[in-house]
Amino acid sequence: MPETNVLTVAELATQLDGQLMGDGSIHVVRVADLSTAHDGEVAYVDDEKFFAAGRASKASCLLASEQFIESARAEIRDHQFGPALIVVAKPKLAFALVAALLHPQKRREPFIHPLAVIAESADVDLTVFVGPHVSIGERTQIGAGTRVEAGVVIGDDVRVGRDCVIHPGVTLYDDVQIGDRVILHASVVIGADGFGYVRDGAGSYHKFPQRGTVLIADDVELGAHTCVDRGALGQTRIGRGTKLDNMVHVGHNCDIGERVVIAAQTGISGSVTIEDDVVVGGQVGFGDHIRVLSGAVIGSKAGVLPGKIVRPGVWWGIPIQPLDEYKRLNAHLGRLPQMREEIKELRRQLAELQKAVQNPER
Amino acid sequence: MPETNVLTVAELATQLDGQLMGDGSIHVVRVADLSTAHDGEVAYVDDEKFFAAGRASKASCLLASEQFIESARAEIRDHQFGPALIVVAKPKLAFALVAALLHPQKRREPFIHPLAVIAESADVDLTVFVGPHVSIGERTQIGAGTRVEAGVVIGDDVRVGRDCVIHPGVTLYDDVQIGDRVILHASVVIGADGFGYVRDGAGSYHKFPQRGTVLIADDVELGAHTCVDRGALGQTRIGRGTKLDNMVHVGHNCDIGERVVIAAQTGISGSVTIEDDVVVGGQVGFGDHIRVLSGAVIGSKAGVLPGKIVRPGVWWGIPIQPLDEYKRLNAHLGRLPQMREEIKELRRQLAELQKAVQNPER
Amino acid sequence: MPETNVLTVAELATQLDGQLMGDGSIHVVRVADLSTAHDGEVAYVDDEKFFAAGRASKASCLLASEQFIESARAEIRDHQFGPALIVVAKPKLAFALVAALLHPQKRREPFIHPLAVIAESADVDLTVFVGPHVSIGERTQIGAGTRVEAGVVIGDDVRVGRDCVIHPGVTLYDDVQIGDRVILHASVVIGADGFGYVRDGAGSYHKFPQRGTVLIADDVELGAHTCVDRGALGQTRIGRGTKLDNMVHVGHNCDIGERVVIAAQTGISGSVTIEDDVVVGGQVGFGDHIRVLSGAVIGSKAGVLPGKIVRPGVWWGIPIQPLDEYKRLNAHLGRLPQMREEIKELRRQLAELQKAVQNPER
Repeated sequence: MPETNVLTVAELATQLDGQLMGDGSIHVVRVADLSTAHDGEVAYVDDEKFFAAGRASKASCLLASEQFIESARAEIRDHQFGPALIVVAKPKLAFALVAALLHPQKRREPFIHPLAVIAESADVDLTVFVGPHVSIGERTQIGAGTRVEAGVVIGDDVRVGRDCVIHPGVTLYDDVQIGDRVILHASVVIGADGFGYVRDGAGSYHKFPQRGTVLIADDVELGAHTCVDRGALGQTRIGRGTKLDNMVHVGHNCDIGERVVIAAQTGISGSVTIEDDVVVGGQVGFGDHIRVLSGAVIGSKAGVLPGKIVRPGVWWGIPIQPLDEYKRLNAHLGRLPQMREEIKELRRQLAELQKAVQNPER
Repeated sequence: MPETNVLTVAELATQLDGQLMGDGSIHVVRVADLSTAHDGEVAYVDDEKFFAAGRASKASCLLASEQFIESARAEIRDHQFGPALIVVAKPKLAFALVAALLHPQKRREPFIHPLAVIAESADVDLTVFVGPHVSIGERTQIGAGTRVEAGVVIGDDVRVGRDCVIHPGVTLYDDVQIGDRVILHASVVIGADGFGYVRDGAGSYHKFPQRGTVLIADDVELGAHTCVDRGALGQTRIGRGTKLDNMVHVGHNCDIGERVVIAAQTGISGSVTIEDDVVVGGQVGFGDHIRVLSGAVIGSKAGVLPGKIVRPGVWWGIPIQPLDEYKRLNAHLGRLPQMREEIKELRRQLAELQKAVQNPER
Repeated sequence: MPETNVLTVAELATQLDGQLMGDGSIHVVRVADLSTAHDGEVAYVDDEKFFAAGRASKASCLLASEQFIESARAEIRDHQFGPALIVVAKPKLAFALVAALLHPQKRREPFIHPLAVIAESADVDLTVFVGPHVSIGERTQIGAGTRVEAGVVIGDDVRVGRDCVIHPGVTLYDDVQIGDRVILHASVVIGADGFGYVRDGAGSYHKFPQRGTVLIADDVELGAHTCVDRGALGQTRIGRGTKLDNMVHVGHNCDIGERVVIAAQTGISGSVTIEDDVVVGGQVGFGDHIRVLSGAVIGSKAGVLPGKIVRPGVWWGIPIQPLDEYKRLNAHLGRLPQMREEIKELRRQLAELQKAVQNPER
């Protein structure tokens, strides 16, 4: 594994603005899972169901909430508690921050591999790492500290910001723009033509112009094999801090806001707007010209019909409906066999009653 | 952006066989969206809902239908209408054709990059562009005018036609055949082994032979990351003029006809036949040995069971049903809670009536 | 097509431990489809519906079951049957074995292409083939007989076993481990970061550490574009002999057992366990922390909710239910319109009866 820093528990506590309980001079070198953590490792206890595991932990340092401290009060008082403790409001968040402190992203020294092919007119910062078999096109700019790993292909007139990581096999088509601190995982494709054709009288398809561009804002991370198509005439945008999982398809002219999260294999047709802070599950499908309002959460495998406006709330199903209604409908579905029986029984009773009314003498 | 041609509006009108209204000597250089088009740009007005935007357009030239001309008759008569007009039957189609005239595909001069690796027995036309880090295998042929972009890998005994564009990161396995004017977007994979195994008595899987080939006919376009597996023993075919979006999976021995359109993330199992002119939405799943007849339209997210014959018409749902039935069923589903109430009410009334009949004296 | 071996029918019969009927001295060079097989080719007859085609076959050799021999008894007795026959219990399995005998995997002579970039500290066996534009990182080991095709990128500290085939464009991130005889199709990505973030008070997402690894066991085959993410803190595992189709997504910390089969475009969220011998269809979606028990079969397009335990049996639908129940429910659904009619009719009859009871004199 790549380089790690060594920090004392006291240093971590300071960085996290957390309350230190125990020996602050202990050194830690690694984050680890609560169940396996041992000497030199930091773990976290979040959910109550892990409190027992937390009390038994062999980690050197635990990040934990007040509630956990409460639960382990006796052990701590009696000095029976092994790990040093750092008390924080959000242990899982603190753990992510500690991981970033202990395990900085793999560093690559500034370097241009002799087998990289870089256009003369390209402007590659001196601090950039460019691996072997990379190609970088005319007039393209690559910002300071960015890593361009082996086999990446970057077209003409592309702008890549600072401190980005572009993993192997990524393709950036001409004219796309990538912000700062963007992470593109292996085989991501940005700026391929959108899917638009016009049919002529003979039934043949003619390409609708796909001449727009793509803007990927700062702090975006795109999972392996995710594709973001270029705008047809305007642009496709992925807003700041948004995270897409593997194999997500983003069609032409989509406008995805900031801090949006989209799980794997979701597909978004053209001209869909997803506002800030929306959460989308995996394998969701969006028709075109949808607008998803901030505050909406869309469950995995849902399907959203073209042109829909999706309001805040939790949505589920194909086509989507509010989760409550979806659950209610599913419950009704489960009772269908019983409903049929009830109808049969009603029919039987009614027939009997009809007979009784028509032949009252009997 | 890449090169563009400069044309007069009169030249465009001639090319489109459209009626020119206004100053034919104006020069245009670019297609643009109706809402943003300005000097030197061509836009189109199609749907009636854009007529107002069309009348307010700052474009140099508008492609429009008779209906639009009718709606703007007063302005045109009074010479209040800014853009030159070209009247055509299908403005969107005309726009696509104008885009092709103004914005020819990126030209690459004939060139073999010194870091491309081309087998001695390969037959690469002198007019071909081969980018850096490309490899081309034994006995492979590449036709005139084709562009093979950086990082493409082409196996042995492959045939690629004329004027194709093969974007970065594409892999063509051995023995596949690609027609003329085919566009393969980044990371397309053609000819990987199909998914076929035979289980032995001990439960282990043995590869069923995947020794067939793939034929991609003329004028096909495949979106980024689309995969077309080779036939097991025969061939997998994609017919002339067919367009597949991103991340479509085409299994072994599929036979996809001409002018078929398939949206993103659709998956097609082995030995499926899709006849000419079929339209398939995104995220559709096909079991194996299906036949989709010409004239069928299959909505997004649909699922088609193995062995089905899908007749002409519009299909929807999992498993698919005619769209009308799907809608009717969905309407019935929505009324399920009401049906339960009705059954309850019937039961109540019946019980009352039973009591009344049994105790008539009261 | 690549090299093939030439064998006599008698040699095949010996290898298959099958009963030879006919001329054992005939040479065969190729497997072929029953319908097209001719001189020098071997085909198989499995299902009864192909018996007629089998009796008409022009193949040099047929692999067939006792049942087929029975059906062709008259022709065989009268020496009217053309192909030599090898009688085996499982003709399709025998066919797969024959294909492996006649058509060994494409051989590559041991070779390091001069345009491959291999770290000095890497340990690449002398019998390995490394194609052009490959890069192999520090301390990485590649076992004997493995083929690393053009454009593959292998990170640092990776271990690849013996006799693997790594197709073009594959990316192996740092620290992953690949067993023996593994086949990775084009653009497979192993070891990208899992999708895990922690939200802070301001709504920004921080990366949860993705520092684990991936273990791909022996005899695994992964289809083109399949992604297996690294563990967050532990490992992601694909067990021995498991076969994944194209574009399958395997999230961080999944544990996939041995001899599991998963069809194309299925997505598996983090921390899912799939036990040995499970079969999963295409486009299935798994929430996180699911356990699928050995003996389960999950139909295409199914959706499994997070945290579920999936027991042995056949499962279908979203969310999954036993196939029988799914079918029953679907049948009920189809009868919904009829149920509504029945309710209406009951209401009508009841109203009539009410009237009759209330006005008995009429």
